Amino acid sequence: MEKHIGAQTIKFQNPPTVLSTAAIVGPKEGDGPLAKYFDKVSSDVLFGTNSWEAAESEMVRQTVELVVQKANLKMDDIQYILAGDLLNQETGSTYGLRSCKRPFFGLFGACSTMGEALSLGAVLVDGGFADYVVASASSHFCGVEKTFRFPLELGTQRPPTASWTVTGDGAAVLSSVGTGPYVTTVTTGRIVDMGIKDSNNMGAAMAPAAADVITQHFRDLNIEPDYYDVIATGDLGTVGKTLLLRLMTESGYDISGLHTDCGIEIFDLERQDIHAGGSGCGCAATTFAGYFYNRLRKKEINRLLFVPTGALHSVVSMQQGESIPAIAHAVAIENTKP
Amino acid sequence: MEKHIGAQTIKFQNPPTVLSTAAIVGPKEGDGPLAKYFDKVSSDVLFGTNSWEAAESEMVRQTVELVVQKANLKMDDIQYILAGDLLNQETGSTYGLRSCKRPFFGLFGACSTMGEALSLGAVLVDGGFADYVVASASSHFCGVEKTFRFPLELGTQRPPTASWTVTGDGAAVLSSVGTGPYVTTVTTGRIVDMGIKDSNNMGAAMAPAAADVITQHFRDLNIEPDYYDVIATGDLGTVGKTLLLRLMTESGYDISGLHTDCGIEIFDLERQDIHAGGSGCGCAATTFAGYFYNRLRKKEINRLLFVPTGALHSVVSMQQGESIPAIAHAVAIENTKP
Repeated sequence: MEKHIGAQTIKFQNPPTVLSTAAIVGPKEGDGPLAKYFDKVSSDVLFGTNSWEAAESEMVRQTVELVVQKANLKMDDIQYILAGDLLNQETGSTYGLRSCKRPFFGLFGACSTMGEALSLGAVLVDGGFADYVVASASSHFCGVEKTFRFPLELGTQRPPTASWTVTGDGAAVLSSVGTGPYVTTVTTGRIVDMGIKDSNNMGAAMAPAAADVITQHFRDLNIEPDYYDVIATGDLGTVGKTLLLRLMTESGYDISGLHTDCGIEIFDLERQDIHAGGSGCGCAATTFAGYFYNRLRKKEINRLLFVPTGALHSVVSMQQGESIPAIAHAVAIENTKP
Repeated sequence: MEKHIGAQTIKFQNPPTVLSTAAIVGPKEGDGPLAKYFDKVSSDVLFGTNSWEAAESEMVRQTVELVVQKANLKMDDIQYILAGDLLNQETGSTYGLRSCKRPFFGLFGACSTMGEALSLGAVLVDGGFADYVVASASSHFCGVEKTFRFPLELGTQRPPTASWTVTGDGAAVLSSVGTGPYVTTVTTGRIVDMGIKDSNNMGAAMAPAAADVITQHFRDLNIEPDYYDVIATGDLGTVGKTLLLRLMTESGYDISGLHTDCGIEIFDLERQDIHAGGSGCGCAATTFAGYFYNRLRKKEINRLLFVPTGALHSVVSMQQGESIPAIAHAVAIENTKP
């Protein structure tokens, strides 16, 4: 267990390289401030299919094929695909990836899924079990609204704390060979439930899980926040960000100068009528795969702590009056090995 | 990548020991032929809660706490819990495990989930990332009927090809130290979709995935079926078993004398009005954790190839006329290291 540091952290001995990333998004994301970082903006939310679920699967298929191609690999070179999404029984991923015919691990961490996929993918590579794995996470605004909320046709009003689900898939190839950026350490989150029951305020539900894992990451590695150039949570939005910064201060860490949130970066919140921020598995995944990976490769930043955050509720659990358990996973991606 | 053998198989260098298992089931499973192998049979399908979803979560909590206790460990000794179920957004696992406060990886492989959890759990232990992990998979008949089929109150007729979802959670502690039984090799499945569209015939949908991964397992390791004492698929039932044996014969492997199916073992199909067999994540998980682990420990069998099988559809994908993608993972558990 020589690679396990502190309570919840793995320090990789042969940090896997993020060999390539790919991000494919829908039209609203293509109208946002990160548009130029995405590989493809589909003008058609249906991606040429006849349902939102099939659209997500088509988006997943295209993104995973693209990320493999961008790594100059063939699909058969990929030993494992780790992927997940928000649809019931993860049909976005499973139907999307059935044509790939590669060993598949389905993951569920709600919007934290890209963190889970990068963590377990890096474990497979660093542990000597694989040379090339693909990590993917996706969401589709229309499919998620249908699954979790109301039929779009109703035009239901959204409260100011609500987030907007990103239509997008972000994927990465992790490799045992390469010159970085490297996945250097991962801190795996615990389920944290602070009793929030409002599924239109997921930022509040998820902020304590993010604070828990970020605090543990610093403690396990005995580092201060300024070790990183950027600490990017997944989809806390403006409401969750405020809470996170306060919780981190209470833990003795001031991350206010380093923190951003993928859900705040990906949209122009005012102009695009987003309310609290972007959300969905695809929010953190595409913002990492598009924006942050690009900045790492250009050395605009050299050390990123990427912390996708997930709300683990369902429609049924909300209807039954349950609170929202949440989880977050911290994944450090650095241009040089520590 | 020295641990990767052939196309899809991992051969562990320090095979993790299955230190303990636990299985908690509902009353119908307690009336079946494997009753004496389960740790607890709840006479109450609600497990003292007021909903089927909460019942599953309570069953998961009890089983995971029990398996840790049976390993003579404390919950804080567990570095990772890997778990999944069939409910939308996996609330059986997430709500059940939020009180454990341990690093959590949510998995989705439908009824193959126990195979996925044992595979990734063994990767974490063999790779030096953890000394103790818990793998768990659960299902609840009433919750699954509500999620996938019809309200129980309707009393809908079931066709002869239909399976009966097991109410149960099976869990295992994998450890870096111990004297076996060992997880020695795992072959990770690919998604296979042969175009079956009848969600009341999941055995037919899953048999090709089982045949694919079992065939690949033999080829990757260059072994014959009789290397194993038992080859146990997850929940193919009688319909899927017949198809599997035929597909294996077509692949050049006769497993007819070695094969059984957890869905056939766990119930008395005729007397209990089960139809094709048991199913659900809990079917393979409890049959392994209860019956097969006991037989391994007693040396009644010494080499088990455990192949949980999963149908990766959702209600929505069925309503949209889609076919059923399936997956299976092969996990070899042996009393001696190869």
